Amino acid sequence: SDEFQFTQHSHRRYNPLTKSWVLCSPHRTQRPWQGAQESANAPALPEYDPKCYLCPGNTRANGETNPAYKTTYAFPNDFPAVKADQPEFKEDEESAKGLLRVTGVRGQCHVICFSPAHNLTIAEMSEQDILPVVRQWIKCYEDMAKVDYINHVQIFENKGSAMGCSNPHPHGQMWCTEDVPEEPAKEIKAMAEYRQQNNACLLCDYAKLETTTQGKPRVVCENDSFACIVPFWAVWPFETMVVSKRHVTSVSKLDDVQQKDLANILRRIACRYDNLFQCSFPYSMGIHQAPVDGQDHNGDTHLHIHFYPPLLRSATVKKFLVGFEMMGEPQRDLTPEQAADRLRSCSEVHYKKQQK
Amino acid sequence: SDEFQFTQHSHRRYNPLTKSWVLCSPHRTQRPWQGAQESANAPALPEYDPKCYLCPGNTRANGETNPAYKTTYAFPNDFPAVKADQPEFKEDEESAKGLLRVTGVRGQCHVICFSPAHNLTIAEMSEQDILPVVRQWIKCYEDMAKVDYINHVQIFENKGSAMGCSNPHPHGQMWCTEDVPEEPAKEIKAMAEYRQQNNACLLCDYAKLETTTQGKPRVVCENDSFACIVPFWAVWPFETMVVSKRHVTSVSKLDDVQQKDLANILRRIACRYDNLFQCSFPYSMGIHQAPVDGQDHNGDTHLHIHFYPPLLRSATVKKFLVGFEMMGEPQRDLTPEQAADRLRSCSEVHYKKQQK
Ligand SMILES: O=P(O)(O)O[C@H]1O[C@H](CO)[C@@H](O)[C@H](O)[C@H]1O
Ligand SMILES: O=P(O)(O)O[C@H]1O[C@H](CO)[C@@H](O)[C@H](O)[C@H]1O
Repeated sequence: SDEFQFTQHSHRRYNPLTKSWVLCSPHRTQRPWQGAQESANAPALPEYDPKCYLCPGNTRANGETNPAYKTTYAFPNDFPAVKADQPEFKEDEESAKGLLRVTGVRGQCHVICFSPAHNLTIAEMSEQDILPVVRQWIKCYEDMAKVDYINHVQIFENKGSAMGCSNPHPHGQMWCTEDVPEEPAKEIKAMAEYRQQNNACLLCDYAKLETTTQGKPRVVCENDSFACIVPFWAVWPFETMVVSKRHVTSVSKLDDVQQKDLANILRRIACRYDNLFQCSFPYSMGIHQAPVDGQDHNGDTHLHIHFYPPLLRSATVKKFLVGFEMMGEPQRDLTPEQAADRLRSCSEVHYKKQQK
Repeated sequence: SDEFQFTQHSHRRYNPLTKSWVLCSPHRTQRPWQGAQESANAPALPEYDPKCYLCPGNTRANGETNPAYKTTYAFPNDFPAVKADQPEFKEDEESAKGLLRVTGVRGQCHVICFSPAHNLTIAEMSEQDILPVVRQWIKCYEDMAKVDYINHVQIFENKGSAMGCSNPHPHGQMWCTEDVPEEPAKEIKAMAEYRQQNNACLLCDYAKLETTTQGKPRVVCENDSFACIVPFWAVWPFETMVVSKRHVTSVSKLDDVQQKDLANILRRIACRYDNLFQCSFPYSMGIHQAPVDGQDHNGDTHLHIHFYPPLLRSATVKKFLVGFEMMGEPQRDLTPEQAADRLRSCSEVHYKKQQK
């Protein structure tokens, strides 16, 4: 056909949350791949590993012993990127001039074990077991909100060695900082501008648009409280966003039903991911929500979770965001609608359980 | 000491080119690493590989035969991300509304072989052999400037399988697009604003500042025309920027001496990189210069080359820009000054030649 088709022709899509563009080249999926391969699935892990510093009862690098925890367990990172206690930074002449600008950053880093079992991930955990993780995030977020010098809480998980994770024991992190980091700051700015122009919340409007469009081409799964969507502007091949359908600014504002619904949708998308290539699917995920800086963020934040998974074609071939992506702009191969379609066709029963 | 020290305490540095921040946590280099390891050096490669689609005289995927080229060789990418020929994109209702914005993108993708030798890289090539690469970039840039629908030329190289490169034969790429991609667009905007405020070029000022600061703590090497600097705001552990000392907007404006000086500094930084961990040092590099959109970019562009190398501690341990970096903001471990110091202490004679 002589018509322009998103599945055939190169185009750029706009990300209104970060105000940036992504190049989509769908015909590129036909390209043969002779480059680097990730290692395939590692041998099965034990439920308890005596050498793991996250398993219950084991001793950590700093000599402390983990309790015999039954659900989740949170503790301060032994190698934190930011610390509570450091000398005050005094801006000097040079730094104020403009080309060499710098400020000190205080903060706290915490680790959150998701489960005592060394060999589980969210994808294989039950909703009932994920709920304590959600509650732990809420507790940590609320605790940090009380700390004077902390203004932002970044909750995230790196899953899999392809995503820089150095311990398979299911865990996430929380980096809490004096400043609001770049990405959330960008989103807050864009959402505030959107509200000024449209008198509405960008993500309320977007969640509604995606869940009411005929055929829902980018929706992977949903429940009463949340939708899991491959964003129209997704960068990573199978990137998704879990977005609250109602206007909620942080995990702290979730009622009991919404907390359960969050556990529900997290399990379902993580399980679909594992099933896509029948492997423990690597990703980084992170929660964007209101900063804890004491300001009213009702107008410029809306709770959502990004999943950035690197795999493209199989358990061993990932997408590299390198030369053009770093120097020019992000480029993706398959369309977001194709990715959503693939994820929709995956089961919500984990492949390991299917085989039994 | 109770003083704030950049080598001890967490801080944020500002990138005036992209108007964004990077978190620097220098004490984090002490953290043990139990995560993914890159594979160590592959066995030595032959000078000619009959199965390589880039070697002289070999046949490519599309059936064409490469000439018996002696220096460089440029040809259209057989799997281009953008194409010259596709149906016109007509903006529809939905797309104009704001949340699902999209445009078509035409363009051309070219591959540039740097050398007929399968087993060389810039790091081991001589200045005389790199000069034709510089001239090839100039030729391609000028050719593309004449193409009506092309407004930007992104020259880049992905070196090493860690950077998504699927063929070790030394080569780079050129993706030429209808639009000016995100990264150069951001830089152009920031440089235009800087000029308005300071009546000067941001990178002229920055190159001068770095090359005249006492002790030049971030300068790796320099010649009459170029300086190679670890930027004050570097993200990747050993990131560098090669910047023209004089105000030059594109490779097309380089005179003979500057062309030779560019070949000189490229060889020297690439060689230092290989020597740092005694391996073929992976990186993505890319040239930022004036778009070819027919507008006057003298005020808002200044030729510079970014090197983004992933290795952190050794030939096998890289820095992962994952969870916090993706969801929050880029984070680095060693300071840019420490990185520059390490690179300055590397020889400009390639380690393979030293061993002989
Ligand atoms: O075109 P290549 O070298 O095969 O592909 C490589 O570089 C491209 C441009 O940065 C990326 O989009 C690809 O993910 C990467 O594998
Ligand atoms: O703290 P971890 O899990 O050891 O480290 C991992 O996550 C951090 C936060 O995204 C990154 O800075 C590291 O590069 C990565 O290896």
